Amino acid sequence: MEIITLSHGSGGKTTHKLIENLFYKNFKNDILLQKNDSSILQKMNGKVAVTTDSFVIKPIFFLGGDIGKLSICGTINDLAVSGAKPMYITVGFIIEEGLEIGILEKIVMSMAKMAKQANVKVIAGDTKVVEKGSVDKIFINTTGIGLIEDRQLYLCANNIQEGDKVIISGSLGDHGMCIMSQREELGLDANIKSDCNLLNTLIKDILNTSKNIRIMRDPTRGGLATTLNEIIAHSNRSIVLNEKDIFIKEEVMSMCQMLGFDPLYVANEGKVVVIVSKDDANKVLDTMRGDPLGKNATIIGEIIDDNKNRVYLKTDIGGTRILNMHDGELLPRIC
Amino acid sequence: MEIITLSHGSGGKTTHKLIENLFYKNFKNDILLQKNDSSILQKMNGKVAVTTDSFVIKPIFFLGGDIGKLSICGTINDLAVSGAKPMYITVGFIIEEGLEIGILEKIVMSMAKMAKQANVKVIAGDTKVVEKGSVDKIFINTTGIGLIEDRQLYLCANNIQEGDKVIISGSLGDHGMCIMSQREELGLDANIKSDCNLLNTLIKDILNTSKNIRIMRDPTRGGLATTLNEIIAHSNRSIVLNEKDIFIKEEVMSMCQMLGFDPLYVANEGKVVVIVSKDDANKVLDTMRGDPLGKNATIIGEIIDDNKNRVYLKTDIGGTRILNMHDGELLPRIC
Repeated sequence: MEIITLSHGSGGKTTHKLIENLFYKNFKNDILLQKNDSSILQKMNGKVAVTTDSFVIKPIFFLGGDIGKLSICGTINDLAVSGAKPMYITVGFIIEEGLEIGILEKIVMSMAKMAKQANVKVIAGDTKVVEKGSVDKIFINTTGIGLIEDRQLYLCANNIQEGDKVIISGSLGDHGMCIMSQREELGLDANIKSDCNLLNTLIKDILNTSKNIRIMRDPTRGGLATTLNEIIAHSNRSIVLNEKDIFIKEEVMSMCQMLGFDPLYVANEGKVVVIVSKDDANKVLDTMRGDPLGKNATIIGEIIDDNKNRVYLKTDIGGTRILNMHDGELLPRIC
Repeated sequence: MEIITLSHGSGGKTTHKLIENLFYKNFKNDILLQKNDSSILQKMNGKVAVTTDSFVIKPIFFLGGDIGKLSICGTINDLAVSGAKPMYITVGFIIEEGLEIGILEKIVMSMAKMAKQANVKVIAGDTKVVEKGSVDKIFINTTGIGLIEDRQLYLCANNIQEGDKVIISGSLGDHGMCIMSQREELGLDANIKSDCNLLNTLIKDILNTSKNIRIMRDPTRGGLATTLNEIIAHSNRSIVLNEKDIFIKEEVMSMCQMLGFDPLYVANEGKVVVIVSKDDANKVLDTMRGDPLGKNATIIGEIIDDNKNRVYLKTDIGGTRILNMHDGELLPRIC
């Protein structure tokens, strides 16, 4: 069993071998193979979108994905919800001395597969190795660069208007409860699959369906409730959600009840929330349902004009409660 | 004493407070304050250069800098040596639960100071907090985006010609020996200052002085010998260095001798090596010496046509030895 040693991060022969045999082999493209301190892209004809994210998820392999798949999907989804076409991605590995190279290879292959599927080039990378005990197995940073081809497109919370509809692409809480159920220390075995997935195609179809998309977000860390609170925070409007229209899988709901979580605050990694004009809501919903990743899409609420910047939930039993932005630790190392 | 808790990384209220009070406050600019999943840049009129680097240096504060200063300088220097004007930088923090917020603040202020000095905007960020023991204090990833304004400029090893001169901007090994001397476990007290610094102004002046710059690099991890080996690897040429012209400070040389390191393989964080046509070498040297960061610049060698892709060192005592690319671990966590 070959393992990662400090020499793999020293910048010498062993580093170069790792880069050639693992990174260049799996990620190869014309830009990466320039092999310079910086990678040079051709001119970008449009506005440029940039996002960065570090991934520290534990465990690194889980039902439905792994840290590699997540690190590509998460960053590509952040570009896509901004209305950008994902183009390039950089990858920074921080690896614990002693990690099996076979494990790193699985992660890298998983990243390469997702990048290829999204037609995104991995253009630059960095590898650091630290002594055993100074990092937990492997952390990955990805930074994504996208192109906004439509000059008019600027998705932001300021676009939101009274009556706009809120659509979610499917069930909530799958990713967070998958990860919790697979934490060794909890000793659970719930068979919940993460929804970790690329949303760029679904999002492109949504943008092609309506010119009245106000804003989109992927409700990851903090879940739907936190994301909607962020969106509505400075809008002088509020969001009213209908609990009955929000889909939560039975096994996810059971796990949430057992562990004491509200699924509306649990992370998703393959869902998009869309705020769209009232008139276009149904056609956007139809488009979303035509994509396997949006087949359970529903309209879950709408925007009201009350100057309060709040997210309300109309519950199944007829009450209304406020979904505040959460505080506290929730689920550490969920992404 | 306020410390970082897992809630600072949970995406909720505490995370937002940290982002507002620390990151937005210190890094503030129009793009960062869009506060979206992706940051939108205006159109970039030229080729775009991109580089990424993770910083895991230990200790996080050292004579001449800290992990924050290093994380900005390192990435800006990588853009600059590629001939790009550094424009934007993204920052990803991975923080150990329990870190003093005051320490994080010092690091952030140091980053903000360097970014401001280089006229670079911090446009996007991410903060993850992991449980105590899962990371050693703080690791930082920075990804830099630069603009190549001169359409003709493409610095790469293929440009190198026989007779070209090799110039280094100053003394070698300062950063690596500074860090080693400050590792608690070694119990040394050598007072060596890291050369950690921004090279973008010096490099801009070099490019303005000569149209015949073949390639530039900052000899960081692996030192000058590794960097020159990378440059010459596929060129069918070799480099001959003259030991007598290479400046190594007395205290750095002593520390190297004591610890058994060759200073030519030790990391620098504020030096640039330039390969330039024979005819332009002296005027480039003059330009470099006119900048405080290049005042000790010297011509240290030249390119020969021997089909061997080697780096030779003509020693003080009249011999010649080959400087191979090193193998093994050298200095872990030096950057």
